[in-house]
Amino acid sequence: MLLLVAFWRRQNSKGQYMKRNKVSSLDVARLAGVSQSAVSRVFSKDDRSSAVSSNMRKRVMEAADQLGYRPNALARAVFVGKSKIVAVLFSYLDNPFYADALERICLELQASGYHALVFMMPETTQGIDQVMEEILQYQVDGMITASVELSSAICARCYDSGIPVVMFVRTQDDRRLSAVTADNVAGARSVAQYLARCGHKRIAMIAGWEGASTNRDRELGFTAGLSEAGLSIHSRAVGHFHPQRAAAAARELFTVASDNRPDAVFVANDYMAVAVMDELRFKLGLRVPDDVSVVGYDDIEIAGFPTYNLTTVSQPLPAMVAATVTMLIAKIESRNVEPEHLLIGGQLVVRGSTKAQSVSTK
Amino acid sequence: MLLLVAFWRRQNSKGQYMKRNKVSSLDVARLAGVSQSAVSRVFSKDDRSSAVSSNMRKRVMEAADQLGYRPNALARAVFVGKSKIVAVLFSYLDNPFYADALERICLELQASGYHALVFMMPETTQGIDQVMEEILQYQVDGMITASVELSSAICARCYDSGIPVVMFVRTQDDRRLSAVTADNVAGARSVAQYLARCGHKRIAMIAGWEGASTNRDRELGFTAGLSEAGLSIHSRAVGHFHPQRAAAAARELFTVASDNRPDAVFVANDYMAVAVMDELRFKLGLRVPDDVSVVGYDDIEIAGFPTYNLTTVSQPLPAMVAATVTMLIAKIESRNVEPEHLLIGGQLVVRGSTKAQSVSTK
Repeated sequence: MLLLVAFWRRQNSKGQYMKRNKVSSLDVARLAGVSQSAVSRVFSKDDRSSAVSSNMRKRVMEAADQLGYRPNALARAVFVGKSKIVAVLFSYLDNPFYADALERICLELQASGYHALVFMMPETTQGIDQVMEEILQYQVDGMITASVELSSAICARCYDSGIPVVMFVRTQDDRRLSAVTADNVAGARSVAQYLARCGHKRIAMIAGWEGASTNRDRELGFTAGLSEAGLSIHSRAVGHFHPQRAAAAARELFTVASDNRPDAVFVANDYMAVAVMDELRFKLGLRVPDDVSVVGYDDIEIAGFPTYNLTTVSQPLPAMVAATVTMLIAKIESRNVEPEHLLIGGQLVVRGSTKAQSVSTK
Repeated sequence: MLLLVAFWRRQNSKGQYMKRNKVSSLDVARLAGVSQSAVSRVFSKDDRSSAVSSNMRKRVMEAADQLGYRPNALARAVFVGKSKIVAVLFSYLDNPFYADALERICLELQASGYHALVFMMPETTQGIDQVMEEILQYQVDGMITASVELSSAICARCYDSGIPVVMFVRTQDDRRLSAVTADNVAGARSVAQYLARCGHKRIAMIAGWEGASTNRDRELGFTAGLSEAGLSIHSRAVGHFHPQRAAAAARELFTVASDNRPDAVFVANDYMAVAVMDELRFKLGLRVPDDVSVVGYDDIEIAGFPTYNLTTVSQPLPAMVAATVTMLIAKIESRNVEPEHLLIGGQLVVRGSTKAQSVSTK
């Protein structure tokens, strides 16, 4: 640390690089009458085990307060190779599920002594590489990706650089990556089983972005569940996880002869499902659930609003975020953690947007 | 840079601090057959003006690729006193207005070569101080605060440390702070004028969190607008910018004799207003707009959903975010920028949740 601080001070006295008046740990040490390493020990979070007497701590803290000293986290990062910064990558925050996730990830990292350097980036691998270069330059201790797909080249770069990555909500085939997701296959299967039990026969699906593992797994589970009930998908359109495109998909599926119209639709997430409900009710003049049952996925706040009262599958966000951060920190603090894919189960939440088919309405 | 890199390598060879195998700019220089400072010039974003021949750039980039070298942004930050990191402080992201704002702030900072270290923190000054200590340790170049109130002690600390702060959406009395907000007074005044023109007589208000300048300015403008129309607020309750508490406020205001019931209500933001509409329709059995007109503020996406079709005042978010980032960067790059409070006007967006009172319905 000595070298660094001395270097700081030299630049400082020249005034060439520094516009701010820095106080160094050496200044604090002199005022407190202790060694510079004692000041370091008092301020270092990693060295709690080092013996610092309460008397020495008190003297150092008083001197630091008097001088307005603050330890330089970046210099420490360069020094010990730990920045305590985690890069957090999102594609978008308009779906409230992701906004909620980001808030929880930041809070969880803060509670663990880490901080989130947040990057907004394209959902696909194209265009990500440049941003990834910037991220790697910040010597982040680890990385959490949500709604983002990494190229295999970038996965290899992270792996080679020793930067642990945990994918949140998404998975990729690369076995070097760890992931935490909801059990989307099981959740979507339970939707299919429930709609079959309700007596629906013409069951449609509005898919999300087809490049996402989330969508793939939900389609997989849904198709499997229908098949187990002796049914198959009546019709299908793609909403790309986007409300307007989901509304267009609903128009496409429901603008057909009434005896061929779906009597139920599973929409791959809630953010699309509420737009689909609006489209069905206000543009197509259909009643939900009397004419058609609608089911979403995620259980975002708006799904519970009485206007929508949407049947859905919950994603246990607090548990998923806690697992993601715990897994990442374990990988940061020990290189011997094997990659794993943790699946966390959700629950079918039955509300008013679905109803059992009575014989008279068939 | 030489000193730092040498220092790195020494620690590296001891293997005491570094678990990762670092490649230095010296290694790149040797392989490319150029000086180390040439490598620095090729990679430095601040030195685009320095003469680097395209031939030299090519040799350096090829050597860097071959060795897997990446410049160390943190070491550069320590070296030149610029981290290119901006601390971005939010209290919550559940209101989609703030999620949208954060997404735009991150993108705008990225486009300008800066990155967002995001902190979630308590809305009030209590409890903020500890997080602020951590932020200051990261040597951030500047700070953007949204939905967060800073104590005057913290304002002074930032000011003394030379860390520029721009408040986004909120203002405080401290004149050393710059701020960018919508013109909430003018916007709320236009709501009052519009409701008066519609012929409403018993106009209520559901306020947000009373500690927020946003709420204070909206109440101020609304009261002034009513007064100009010869009216005053019929009744008022507080929703704290929270949907459930806003719904409770609506119950309080509307559970009165029908001849004393408000015929219009201005809700201090959209996020509360949609919850108020649900409460009026589904719990209190009132029709919107036939029994009561409802107006919100912000023009978040959900306000435009046909279910709500909410009359509101837009906040021009893209312009506000661009101004915030531009103002902050100007302050980071020159100390001679005076603090200012920039007001950006919004527009009344008339939709279906309001209607003119006909004589027959009075």
